Parts: sequence; C-alpha cells; structure tokens
Amino acid sequence: MMNRITILLLGVATLSGATVFTTTTSHRAVAQEAAPIFVTKIPSGYRDWRVVSVAHEAGELNDIRAVLGNDIAIKAYREGKLPFPEGAIVGRIAWSYVASEENNKSFGREQSFVAGSPTDAYLQFMVKDSKKYAATGGWGYSSFDKDGKPTDEAAMKKCFPCHQAIEDRDFVFTRYAP
Amino acid sequence: MMNRITILLLGVATLSGATVFTTTTSHRAVAQEAAPIFVTKIPSGYRDWRVVSVAHEAGELNDIRAVLGNDIAIKAYREGKLPFPEGAIVGRIAWSYVASEENNKSFGREQSFVAGSPTDAYLQFMVKDSKKYAATGGWGYSSFDKDGKPTDEAAMKKCFPCHQAIEDRDFVFTRYAP
Repeated sequence: MMNRITILLLGVATLSGATVFTTTTSHRAVAQEAAPIFVTKIPSGYRDWRVVSVAHEAGELNDIRAVLGNDIAIKAYREGKLPFPEGAIVGRIAWSYVASEENNKSFGREQSFVAGSPTDAYLQFMVKDSKKYAATGGWGYSSFDKDGKPTDEAAMKKCFPCHQAIEDRDFVFTRYAP
Repeated sequence: MMNRITILLLGVATLSGATVFTTTTSHRAVAQEAAPIFVTKIPSGYRDWRVVSVAHEAGELNDIRAVLGNDIAIKAYREGKLPFPEGAIVGRIAWSYVASEENNKSFGREQSFVAGSPTDAYLQFMVKDSKKYAATGGWGYSSFDKDGKPTDEAAMKKCFPCHQAIEDRDFVFTRYAP
C-alpha cells in the first residue's frame, strides 16, 4: 500500500514538475514575444531637441543625419554620465545625401553635400526604460519611415544586437560633438 | 556788375556743390570703413538652438556641419517667411570630417563619417539687423575659431559677396530640413 502511494505521489510530483517547467518556459517565451522591445510612437517634440552630433553614412544608407537628444539625454551627455538616466531619448533624423548644385556654384567647386528628402528609415529613437526594455539593455528601439509608419520588425530586431558592441557606453554609438 | 555777381555766385555754388559732393562721398567711405559689418561676439546659448539642417563640405574645408537657428530664425524658417525678421540669427558649427572606425566595425563596412574636433572656422553666425548691417544686406557676419577668437577680417570680407548670389532667399544658403 505504502509503495503504491509513494509511486503515485512521485508520479504526481513529476507531473507537477513537468507542468511547472512547461509553464515557466511558456511564460518566458510569451514574455519575449510580448515584451515591448520596440517603440511604436514617435516621441513628441523631437524636432526641437538639441544636437548631439551629425554624421554621414555612405554606401547603401547614403544619408546625412542629425543625432538629437531630449533634455534628459543632453544633460547626461554634457555631464558625461553613464548609464543614461531613465527617460533619456536619443533620436536621429536621416535625410538623403544630396550634392548641392547651388552651393557648388557659389563655392566654384564640387564640394557641398546637403540634406535632401527623408530616407526610408527617416526617424530612429532609443528610449531608456530599464524595466520596460530590460530584454534589450534597457533601451527600446524604434524606426519610422517618412510617413511616420514604424519600420518592419525584422529590420528593428537588428538594432540591439548591433548596439551590443558598445555596451560599455550604455549601447549608444554617437558621441557628443563640442 | 550783374555778370560778375552771377559768375561769383556760380563759383560759390560750384564750390559748394563740390564740397557737398566731397563730404558725401567721404561720409560714405567712412561709413563703409566704420560700419560694424562683422559680429565679434559669439551669440550666447547657440549650442542649444534647434537644427535647420546638416551638411558636408568636402575639399579644403573637409568638415561636417550643423546649421542652427535661434527661435526667431527657426520660426521664420518653419513659416517660410522671407525676409528673416530682425533679431534672427543663423549659426553653423563645423567639425572635422572623420571616418569612424568604431561604427565601420559594427556596420562591417567603410561607410561612417562623424564629427571630429572643431575646425579652424569652427563657428559662424549671420545676425539680422537691417540698420546696423545695412551695408551687407541687413546681415552681420561672423566667424570664430575653436578658441572663440574671431577669424581674420580678410576672410570675413568674403562672406557677403558670396551670399549675394542668393539675395532672393535673403542671403541665406541653408534650406530647412524636414
């Protein structure tokens, strides 16, 4: 009788264990799927933010860009504080890289490249929220086309793996320009 | 007797005319010499101004730059209003144009150019004051090196002649980037 009960209890325990295990991994999988790792709303007022720096990406991107920061991000940049505090947002606007015939005419040389129309990945933002975006280093990533529509998630999934290269600077590539 | 008086008066009139003419041209020459056509003080708070656009100047300049505007300038830009109102200031910051090894490594391609150290003509500003700078289209020009020292006047004398090419846009080259 005792043996049968032991076996039964063991069986129940094993079953429970299996169930608990399944539930946990299932929760984890759901958490990964459902976690808001991407930001889907353009932060308001970003076009009024202050300049962090500027850059030109040649090749396929072929853009010229301004990197801006909201007040929290700019303050942290200027104070050289890492990691960035909660609420910091770093944004970048990318315009097509266009030779300026008008400027070249005045300079008398082919030397001037300016910002043209918005690119396919016009706006990108990194939003610091350590809890919400814990799965991606505390930053939520986002990308929007010229109509303000979020870029497809397949492209956005590449953000964090690439930014991991600079984990020691809290995942932010752009340095503050004096 | 009448003839002599007429001749005398004519002589006086001619002399007066000559004097008036001389005085006028002399005043003009002095005005051109003494007029404050250059701005010798860096406008305060310029690094907090909003972005008008960005550009890359290749060749001898070899810089990457942000063009910023004070509140008056940005408002006029956004409303598409010309000429710019009194008090408008358009500024530009120029950094050396530097390939980013760090970014290239992450991209896996030689494509990234970023802002380096301040250039020899680090800061330039156009200040709108139609009366004060009447001799140069209503704009006072300025240029400062990385230590905040005004660039030599010989270089600054080239500002207005070049900007005259775009008198129809109130002498401002840079267009507002969306």
